[in-house]
Amino acid sequence: MGDIHKASLLATLVAACFGAQAADVDANTINRIADEGYNRGQVVSLAAHLSDRIGGRMTNSPAMRQAEKWTQQMFSTWGLQNVHLEGYDFGRGWWIESASVRMTAPRPLALSAIPVAWTPPTKGTVSAPIAVAPIRHVRDLAQYKGKLRGKIVLVSYPDAPKDDTAATFKRFDEAELGKLSTYDQPHYDPDGSFDMYKKYFEQAREIDRFMAAEGALALVKMSYRGGGLVQGEGYFHRKGETVSLPEIEMAAEDYRRLARLAKVGEVELEMNNNVHFDDRDMNAYNVLAEIPGSDPQAGYVMAGAHLDSWVAGDGAADNGAGSVVVMEAARILAQLGVKPKRTIRFALWSGEEQGLLGSLAYIQKHIATRPRPSDAAHAKLPEFMWETYPITPLPGYNEMAAYFNLDNGSGKIRGIYAEGNFAAMPVLRSWLAPFSSLGADKVVAKKTGGTDHEIMAGMGLPAFQFIQDPLDYGSRVHHSNLDTFDHLRTEDLRQAAVIMATVLLQAAESDTPMPRNVLPKQPTPTDPFLYRDPAKD
Amino acid sequence: MGDIHKASLLATLVAACFGAQAADVDANTINRIADEGYNRGQVVSLAAHLSDRIGGRMTNSPAMRQAEKWTQQMFSTWGLQNVHLEGYDFGRGWWIESASVRMTAPRPLALSAIPVAWTPPTKGTVSAPIAVAPIRHVRDLAQYKGKLRGKIVLVSYPDAPKDDTAATFKRFDEAELGKLSTYDQPHYDPDGSFDMYKKYFEQAREIDRFMAAEGALALVKMSYRGGGLVQGEGYFHRKGETVSLPEIEMAAEDYRRLARLAKVGEVELEMNNNVHFDDRDMNAYNVLAEIPGSDPQAGYVMAGAHLDSWVAGDGAADNGAGSVVVMEAARILAQLGVKPKRTIRFALWSGEEQGLLGSLAYIQKHIATRPRPSDAAHAKLPEFMWETYPITPLPGYNEMAAYFNLDNGSGKIRGIYAEGNFAAMPVLRSWLAPFSSLGADKVVAKKTGGTDHEIMAGMGLPAFQFIQDPLDYGSRVHHSNLDTFDHLRTEDLRQAAVIMATVLLQAAESDTPMPRNVLPKQPTPTDPFLYRDPAKD
Repeated sequence: MGDIHKASLLATLVAACFGAQAADVDANTINRIADEGYNRGQVVSLAAHLSDRIGGRMTNSPAMRQAEKWTQQMFSTWGLQNVHLEGYDFGRGWWIESASVRMTAPRPLALSAIPVAWTPPTKGTVSAPIAVAPIRHVRDLAQYKGKLRGKIVLVSYPDAPKDDTAATFKRFDEAELGKLSTYDQPHYDPDGSFDMYKKYFEQAREIDRFMAAEGALALVKMSYRGGGLVQGEGYFHRKGETVSLPEIEMAAEDYRRLARLAKVGEVELEMNNNVHFDDRDMNAYNVLAEIPGSDPQAGYVMAGAHLDSWVAGDGAADNGAGSVVVMEAARILAQLGVKPKRTIRFALWSGEEQGLLGSLAYIQKHIATRPRPSDAAHAKLPEFMWETYPITPLPGYNEMAAYFNLDNGSGKIRGIYAEGNFAAMPVLRSWLAPFSSLGADKVVAKKTGGTDHEIMAGMGLPAFQFIQDPLDYGSRVHHSNLDTFDHLRTEDLRQAAVIMATVLLQAAESDTPMPRNVLPKQPTPTDPFLYRDPAKD
Repeated sequence: MGDIHKASLLATLVAACFGAQAADVDANTINRIADEGYNRGQVVSLAAHLSDRIGGRMTNSPAMRQAEKWTQQMFSTWGLQNVHLEGYDFGRGWWIESASVRMTAPRPLALSAIPVAWTPPTKGTVSAPIAVAPIRHVRDLAQYKGKLRGKIVLVSYPDAPKDDTAATFKRFDEAELGKLSTYDQPHYDPDGSFDMYKKYFEQAREIDRFMAAEGALALVKMSYRGGGLVQGEGYFHRKGETVSLPEIEMAAEDYRRLARLAKVGEVELEMNNNVHFDDRDMNAYNVLAEIPGSDPQAGYVMAGAHLDSWVAGDGAADNGAGSVVVMEAARILAQLGVKPKRTIRFALWSGEEQGLLGSLAYIQKHIATRPRPSDAAHAKLPEFMWETYPITPLPGYNEMAAYFNLDNGSGKIRGIYAEGNFAAMPVLRSWLAPFSSLGADKVVAKKTGGTDHEIMAGMGLPAFQFIQDPLDYGSRVHHSNLDTFDHLRTEDLRQAAVIMATVLLQAAESDTPMPRNVLPKQPTPTDPFLYRDPAKD
């Protein structure tokens, strides 16, 4: 066989392996992307600025406002087009200037804790004895009537510490990646998550009302995990929803120590939550930027990550990592001067941590809407939980040709969750083929939730989330005070940026449009014979 | 075969398995020990009082004084005899009243750090810009000349964070226990550890002198591990040795953030070390108590654990756990009213963390002495490192029939390190045989170091350390702010107390004395052809 024949056969084999779409982007362009990302990459500096310099970015906080300005400025500097904010009604700004809590009796001891988001400040320093009043249900409140006046109240149940037998930091091996191939069939349970949320929101409000009426001074909750980690999540960000009492979430070790000491004597705390509300602008904002497409009829492809974080830590892995990878992908493509057929749009969402609110606002403005639940109780739920039908597509529904989300920490990309879009899997595989030796070629049908592609995928859009190595994201970093730059892996961020840029360009150039899913219709309950056991709640 | 014959054969077999000593203690007594320890045990309450109520107990600190009083009081309450303190020259008392460090520029942020033990206080709150001046060797100092005046100086090298791929919490499985059976042959290297210690002590002093002369305001060191852990170990406890500048040890995540920010701009800290020296009593004290033996010629057996802890955390696992197990073993045996042949002596050591100083003082008073090193530099080393000969036994040398140490956290007992006393292994196995189903029957020849049996074993005494499950002791608890009650496992403490009490009673009652090792003589260097590479230091 002559060399020419061999080359021709090779080309045929490559095309067969990569699928037709592999030819859409010049192979040289893929290498130019890798060259720019690996040899002149800026993703590490971007990550350091966002997490070290700006720090934690709770939606509508001063730091988030700073991040909104800085990210727009970067996009503009790199030559992105149509850089702008899209606002939507969110609620109050809130931030921690400083906070401290100390045990003063039976011995002096500094304790690790964080104010719970959107709870009010203490009136200066509060010094008071504690009462341990663990509450699992509203019905548990009555027993504490008349016992809490002037007390700082510990409201979590101090359960036994757990044995952390799993590795703190890990990467997927082939066996674990293989497990992602088990497709979970769709499950429709109209009351399932409703019960949980109703419990959280209504119970939290009920506890606050009771405690305030009883004359308690502040509430202390226990961190849900040990190792000194604190999170401080809180959900009452709407004006008029703010709770009455200051709250802190305390490291489990410190909380349990207080609870044990209270069994044998009096315990006193000194606590100061120097936190502030800022109601000057109740809108939250998504940051958007584009590389315009050459064909106005071809629609757009999109990359998204949420820029907002929780209140503890610097929001480095959740989701500074995803944000800077999206930014770096934009920078690389702009730097290369690509002129794709479809527009490539970049989104840095806000309000993700409070219920995917930023991407939801985008969807409601540009993509599709769902009806308000007819049931008054259901209508009070966070909107991302509305499972109502029919879904009404807006004119922009078909313009979004593909959406890629990155929000699982800083672990390198191992593949893509196709989110039940079976027809898209061969296409996605072909786009990832150049990165198989980077470990990034796994495409699975599995659906993932809890971040900004979820609502889009649930509306039938070709919206995907990347599979990423877990690192120590779930074990200790997620939402905690350890969400700092140290827990990023910079080589992983570079890999993710190169892949993100390449996949976006392939999606933007592809001759055959990305297969779309069906427009979802009202499902039947998966477990129509289910009885709920109230004892289990 | 008749029943009588079967019983007789069984007894013969049991005796063969357990060795002759198994008969020394009435089997009923072992069950009474287990009954008292498991069904009316107090070890959990003891652990809570020591760690929660008294807290961290650095030698000669006010909390350690409180612990010395409380433990004597407990021993006396339980009816132990000859309860007393044995003092020895140690140095200064030191304690933290409060401490804080905040970044004030480029953004406000509370940081996790702890004052380094025995460093002086700041003069109130110090506010200053930082300088990053990593120092590995004294020769690194010169480059910073003239650059540090008025600065808070970061002196550790901020190396890359590590991937914590090991499980945080673990128990030994059979394979891991099996690995303990590999006996490490004795290794005599007259200069090895000398180099390391000389480096620490001389270099630390040199750095302090340089920094003070340059007008630096305070030093910041980086925690040697991530995850927000801080330790704060420091060694200059002798009067006249105190360093000039205040020092803190900072969580690695926070330290590295400062170091990164300093690469791109000015960073300012606000720091307050409100720490105190207390020179009223420069003696440290061991707590001793006894159950007297019936035969004054038979000597004594001893259990020991160090009561002192480091400055971070509550000293729960290191070594509150060992201390309360020793106390509980004493309580159980006293409660049972045992009248052993040999005296059972209980020791709660101090100064362990500064170089096994408490047990060393006991040895020098009661057991044996080593000559002062002839070389002036070697003579400056901590005394537990003196490898000088001949060892001179004191009259009490032969009185100590056995010593059992417990100092590897709160993990349950898995067996005993025979510390190179091969002849003792069958005896130890027979004593542990009743506890095989508790997983506690492994006896290995291996030597372990770093705690109070080490010097005794090195002098040929029958001194042993228990093998314990590791739990999360090494991964995050050892010497850190997480050394709290939550990281103890109460079921493990109960098991250890029952076994400790039983083994002590067996050793005290045994008809055949515990095999003793030879009195060590000057060894020859194991690696006489070794060249030291100074580039590696």
